[in-house]
Amino acid sequence: MTEPLTIVGSGLAGTLAAVYLAQAGHQVSLLERRGDMRSQTQAAGRSINLALSARGLHALDEVGLKDKVLEQALPMRGRMMHAPDGELTSQPYGLKDDEYINSISRSYLNQVLMDAAEKAGVEIRFEQRCLGMDFDKKQLQMQDAQGQDYIIQSPTVIGADGVGSALRRSLIQRLRVNYSQNYLDHGYKELTIPAGANLQFQMDPESLHIWPRGHFMLIALPNPDKSFTCTLFLPFEGQESFQSLDNSPAAIQAFFERYFADALALMPDLIETYLANPTGVLSTIRCAPWHVDGQMLLIGDASHAIVPFFGQGMNSAFEDCTLLAKAFQTYGPNISEVFSQFSSQRLADANAIANLALDNFIEMRDRVADSDFLLRKKLSLELESRYPEIFIPKYSMVSFHRIPYAQAEALGQAQQELLKRLTAGRDDLAQIDWQAVAQEMQAYAQLAEINSAA
Amino acid sequence: MTEPLTIVGSGLAGTLAAVYLAQAGHQVSLLERRGDMRSQTQAAGRSINLALSARGLHALDEVGLKDKVLEQALPMRGRMMHAPDGELTSQPYGLKDDEYINSISRSYLNQVLMDAAEKAGVEIRFEQRCLGMDFDKKQLQMQDAQGQDYIIQSPTVIGADGVGSALRRSLIQRLRVNYSQNYLDHGYKELTIPAGANLQFQMDPESLHIWPRGHFMLIALPNPDKSFTCTLFLPFEGQESFQSLDNSPAAIQAFFERYFADALALMPDLIETYLANPTGVLSTIRCAPWHVDGQMLLIGDASHAIVPFFGQGMNSAFEDCTLLAKAFQTYGPNISEVFSQFSSQRLADANAIANLALDNFIEMRDRVADSDFLLRKKLSLELESRYPEIFIPKYSMVSFHRIPYAQAEALGQAQQELLKRLTAGRDDLAQIDWQAVAQEMQAYAQLAEINSAA
Repeated sequence: MTEPLTIVGSGLAGTLAAVYLAQAGHQVSLLERRGDMRSQTQAAGRSINLALSARGLHALDEVGLKDKVLEQALPMRGRMMHAPDGELTSQPYGLKDDEYINSISRSYLNQVLMDAAEKAGVEIRFEQRCLGMDFDKKQLQMQDAQGQDYIIQSPTVIGADGVGSALRRSLIQRLRVNYSQNYLDHGYKELTIPAGANLQFQMDPESLHIWPRGHFMLIALPNPDKSFTCTLFLPFEGQESFQSLDNSPAAIQAFFERYFADALALMPDLIETYLANPTGVLSTIRCAPWHVDGQMLLIGDASHAIVPFFGQGMNSAFEDCTLLAKAFQTYGPNISEVFSQFSSQRLADANAIANLALDNFIEMRDRVADSDFLLRKKLSLELESRYPEIFIPKYSMVSFHRIPYAQAEALGQAQQELLKRLTAGRDDLAQIDWQAVAQEMQAYAQLAEINSAA
Repeated sequence: MTEPLTIVGSGLAGTLAAVYLAQAGHQVSLLERRGDMRSQTQAAGRSINLALSARGLHALDEVGLKDKVLEQALPMRGRMMHAPDGELTSQPYGLKDDEYINSISRSYLNQVLMDAAEKAGVEIRFEQRCLGMDFDKKQLQMQDAQGQDYIIQSPTVIGADGVGSALRRSLIQRLRVNYSQNYLDHGYKELTIPAGANLQFQMDPESLHIWPRGHFMLIALPNPDKSFTCTLFLPFEGQESFQSLDNSPAAIQAFFERYFADALALMPDLIETYLANPTGVLSTIRCAPWHVDGQMLLIGDASHAIVPFFGQGMNSAFEDCTLLAKAFQTYGPNISEVFSQFSSQRLADANAIANLALDNFIEMRDRVADSDFLLRKKLSLELESRYPEIFIPKYSMVSFHRIPYAQAEALGQAQQELLKRLTAGRDDLAQIDWQAVAQEMQAYAQLAEINSAA
């Protein structure tokens, strides 16, 4: 009926795409550079847990895996901010009881997806490295486990080979492909707060913990084994930086004592873990178009890698899979049309979540420590409560709804201005001018309508 | 005394860099992918003539080649706009007699530079293709005329291998190199207006001719053989596009009859030339940093390719050579410092000329046909005449001075606003409010001072 599909990369995006498309009746093979993670120990230092929210859950629901995945998830209902003196401030993510994000293990999720792919008839071939693609010769260039090069002739390829995508490297050498890669001046390092002596969580497990310190921050997400995975985001260079810490145990210890004393008290292995784990880089990748005729299409990080600060890397990749499966339904078996429609419809949204994720870094590391910001967040939820038909806070549009990212970005900017106007000179919800709010809501309702129509 | 230098690419930037550095006492070898252009016929379709202005002339003067080059140059003192009905409007580029740009043959210029390089002791090795560089192994990867791969171990490399730079491809695979490539939706096609039957120019030879048509345009520059090289800039797709013309002789003829009737009358070989010449793409490349330690530095198009609409591609590449030679003087023999200082000091200016060139496309294809725009241009030159110590028009800052591009961009934006304010509602210089001008000039003088101090 349809041509067989070759998916490159059995990470989260590639494997979910394989599940979706195999369930829809396509013949799918999945090529993976590494060995089978289900029978191997994990490489250290990769992001260990992720925040699964509405878009990811919707995709997993569509392929029948939502409940299975949520068995191992931990709800995070809000942010818990840790001040330098250890004082805690909490802030709910949403208004409703079911508005929380889910801390989930990346490797557990990936393994569930691999099992489901095989169950749906997908052949996964491990230790097959993709070197690139020659679009003129229509050849996928591969290397097998023995280091032997081979080609696959005229395949239909979905490239889910991640942020360092070899297929993207081939794509951007084509004429008229626009491309950018931008690195943050910050890197990241994963650390651990183990379970306590009583084998229980040592901090509130229903929160995403943040230690905002202006130009840098520490965050922590809970794991089912009662530990927290912490991530330190710090500039590579400058006064407080990975360079200035210089892998010196004394400097690392002093830095944590000064800025993260309450976390340090829970991290007996800080120095060891800090020195053992690599320092990761953070980049934003933008690319357009994402496809070459009906030969090859990129999805997920391969086409639009984003920084992790909105917790949307996996969620946006999963939404890619949802939309790609839908494009196959609508435009198949014309693969060229499937790829081109998907690519052009998804581009603006991918750009928008890239921007939102960059903005959220400033918010997390800096603004969450600010009382004006906290008042605006409070008002934002109050507006949703009073005007549920009109006003959905930006964070909720992105995390608890499937409103297109570009629309969430545009409305989020309008919200930001509106919240600033309404809270200017005020320091408590009780002081808000509710008549001014009513007027603002009229204008906002029109804007929201225009944006949802667009 | 200093390490030998390996320059990759004997185009305009690479060869001038070789001349500069060899004259300064460095041992330089120059590797070129193609054969020796001095003994071969040229590939068709590459840009045939270029506009040489202050920055390029300054560089040629420093290496003692200015007079030799100008022997074959033709002064272009202004723009000559061709309306659809054939009506001509002219506009001088500058205020002073010596403020003109020079139409020069790319291949003549390149050959003069090659001869000068060899005279200065540079060894030029032809048919040596650079495949990239392995920065960890410090190996420059090359291929010889027989297709045999070889490496050069631990060279100090200056990459001048142009817009498709293999060295840049190696660079951007390094961590934390920011990079973007953006293509215009327009392509270009080179055409010819031959000398007339009397062996004379068929249009004014002291002008750069423009047929502005909104979304597209034709331009023409004079050649010493009394011909003009014309370039058609046209969208790839859409209503009036390379795609819509579809290489159909009838469609091409009709298109030129409709939009460029006066030019068509001078182009007996239009159809033949149109079909024979390739359609070129236009891209802007941005990259940061441009170097890897003291191993490799990119210059010219390889690091900052720009669109041709300000006539600054060659001029900015030549200015790179001037500044690089100066960095060697100042920071040598510490090559790593030479490369890093050059890269960081030059980045903002390269970005600025990329922006200016993109802006100028709109100006050339659209605004030059607009009477408000022409009045602002007139006023701009009048301001320079009345306030020579304060006001230098943007075009002049870029083309007739060596004011850093970033400064020219910032001041150019201020000029644009100021000229709009002063000409609003007016259609003649006689109506200008000279008291308002005097006030504007005070504010502008302060801005210019801040910018030149920055």
